[in-house]
Amino acid sequence: MKKGRIITLLTDFGLKDHFVGTMKGVIYSINPDAVITDITHEISPQDIFEGSFNLYQSYKYFPHGTVHMAVVDPGVGGERKCIIIKTDRYTYIGPDNGILSLAVQDECDKPDIYEINNKKYLLENVSNTFHGRDIFAPVSAHISAGIEAGDIGKPVSEYNKIEFPKIEEEGASLSARIIFIDKFGNLITNIDNSYVDRIERIELKDIVINNISASYNQDSPDSVIALPGSTNFLEISIYMSNAAKVLGIKRDDKVSVYLNEK
Amino acid sequence: MKKGRIITLLTDFGLKDHFVGTMKGVIYSINPDAVITDITHEISPQDIFEGSFNLYQSYKYFPHGTVHMAVVDPGVGGERKCIIIKTDRYTYIGPDNGILSLAVQDECDKPDIYEINNKKYLLENVSNTFHGRDIFAPVSAHISAGIEAGDIGKPVSEYNKIEFPKIEEEGASLSARIIFIDKFGNLITNIDNSYVDRIERIELKDIVINNISASYNQDSPDSVIALPGSTNFLEISIYMSNAAKVLGIKRDDKVSVYLNEK
Amino acid sequence: MKKGRIITLLTDFGLKDHFVGTMKGVIYSINPDAVITDITHEISPQDIFEGSFNLYQSYKYFPHGTVHMAVVDPGVGGERKCIIIKTDRYTYIGPDNGILSLAVQDECDKPDIYEINNKKYLLENVSNTFHGRDIFAPVSAHISAGIEAGDIGKPVSEYNKIEFPKIEEEGASLSARIIFIDKFGNLITNIDNSYVDRIERIELKDIVINNISASYNQDSPDSVIALPGSTNFLEISIYMSNAAKVLGIKRDDKVSVYLNEK
Repeated sequence: MKKGRIITLLTDFGLKDHFVGTMKGVIYSINPDAVITDITHEISPQDIFEGSFNLYQSYKYFPHGTVHMAVVDPGVGGERKCIIIKTDRYTYIGPDNGILSLAVQDECDKPDIYEINNKKYLLENVSNTFHGRDIFAPVSAHISAGIEAGDIGKPVSEYNKIEFPKIEEEGASLSARIIFIDKFGNLITNIDNSYVDRIERIELKDIVINNISASYNQDSPDSVIALPGSTNFLEISIYMSNAAKVLGIKRDDKVSVYLNEK
Repeated sequence: MKKGRIITLLTDFGLKDHFVGTMKGVIYSINPDAVITDITHEISPQDIFEGSFNLYQSYKYFPHGTVHMAVVDPGVGGERKCIIIKTDRYTYIGPDNGILSLAVQDECDKPDIYEINNKKYLLENVSNTFHGRDIFAPVSAHISAGIEAGDIGKPVSEYNKIEFPKIEEEGASLSARIIFIDKFGNLITNIDNSYVDRIERIELKDIVINNISASYNQDSPDSVIALPGSTNFLEISIYMSNAAKVLGIKRDDKVSVYLNEK
Repeated sequence: MKKGRIITLLTDFGLKDHFVGTMKGVIYSINPDAVITDITHEISPQDIFEGSFNLYQSYKYFPHGTVHMAVVDPGVGGERKCIIIKTDRYTYIGPDNGILSLAVQDECDKPDIYEINNKKYLLENVSNTFHGRDIFAPVSAHISAGIEAGDIGKPVSEYNKIEFPKIEEEGASLSARIIFIDKFGNLITNIDNSYVDRIERIELKDIVINNISASYNQDSPDSVIALPGSTNFLEISIYMSNAAKVLGIKRDDKVSVYLNEK
């Protein structure tokens, strides 16, 4: 397999309807040698941040040359652009609403950006409601088959970025947030793992955590723990349980962290 | 990749159990070069119409030569036949209960139909409860590997078709129905998009829609809109919301449409 | 395709988050020719028995040479080993907590077992919370690419096995259990299909079943039936309905079976 053959898909289309299968049919019809792989299709409907965060967590584990297509697209059929972003390692394809931005910004300061405008590389009839099928799938397939981004779109200078919620540092205390809740109910914060050695105390609602654990695995199953997460962010968890449900925590809830003086 | 290598799967088996994985194992054991791709496995249990509608929406986007296997099969182990339907472009495999019919009828008036009867191409022990694994997967694999349908089954003259709910046209008014609800809660009707230019008013329960929108994207998030859908049927939607839930609409609910005099 | 290229994945990671996609990226980065196929990722969180049962039901349908990776891993980051088990036909990779055991024991009495200890074949930074990505995916990829298990781990003599719930036979009566409930709500018991010819009566809660059916397909939709299942175990079902929900049955619930005197 040549490396350019991999196309990843990330959408909020779900797996109940034919949408994802149909997009794969479009891709295979254009590039029968494509290797299509799903990142997820279960992004919460229209949740651009959740989609962008998942792409950001996953993108760099794929071989260089991979085409990353991401479609969470409440503005489909409206004014927003359809874009291709090229970096040294990957090509990103999706609507210009920020969905691609956390991954692209993590990888590269000055990517090449193209607005898709060459109808030759789209399906013949482009609907106003399913650009995944009519625009993004065929463009991804053509890119993976070797067509240049510059043949499919015209260069533009900017793309839209979403805000990554930053922690606020005030002396020895950090004001942070829950930015992601995974399927086990683990609570991912926006506190970089690099802070871990300096953390003295974490407060979340009425819960106080006084030390950092090494793993989920605990002697006592019910205690709330904090540990450096595989996301590269500190997470809060309950061993063998669902912390989000048990503690009633939602995304954006506040976390306070107190650091060692050192 | 040669085009005949693609096998699509559509079932109501779900993704929680091993069923789909097991079928893929059977296919790879027979044809290691198969490219297996899912349309969906989350069809509502035993819902033949929903399965057939999803196949109908998806089938034609795949390369010619694709093998479409669809198994929603409440009659498994009973009297219903197992069939192969060959058209100019595709081979369809499934139980003879109508699941294949919306796609096949859309493509072709006079397909070749075969009743599967050659045990040589099935698993050695055929259960009465999992023909996906024991019959349809191995037959799909053999077809994709180049075995002729006529070697696996005997020609028959008919296959079972399901009724597609037709609109009733009475002068300037259409009596229509909701035939499909997608994962975003969009309400797909059985009104062909070709009517769009002539529609004056749509009534659904106590809701009246007086114009056709171009896309989901609206200035005011809460308004109920109608627009030509990617399914080729008119759909009713609420921007950034779930119309089915908000309006309490179910499949088969009635929609009334009033046309321009023209 | 060479047979060793197939890697199956079975986890409790779910399909909502990027986890599974990320693991596939790791695999493709190491072995671009891998054919990755999912058994399921919707095992109930931390349910080792459910994971092991699904692998056991599925493993043998894959081509010889397949790499089976299974990760349901509440002990991730703790003391449990990461192992490779080699049999004549397959290579199994996962945590040493019993997840692999029902399949391996079904296939082979004396497999070769290795404890993964060569960091060269893992990701550079191994987290304590996502060994699927950092250990099991790269090891699976290297094995599928032809690296010997003995180069990745050191031989060990034992691996952990989970208990398969045995039926208790007391004269003409069997005390059995529901061991698995599938997505249709069918109740799979631990009674081997080989008992079927001798069964006179089955009791489950206040339900009495007096004969064995051939298939799900019944004249009367509401009757509770027992039939030989595709799992090779007797199952209890309601035609066109969800027996688990209708009867309020859970895994581990008791089933009593009375045999013919014969």
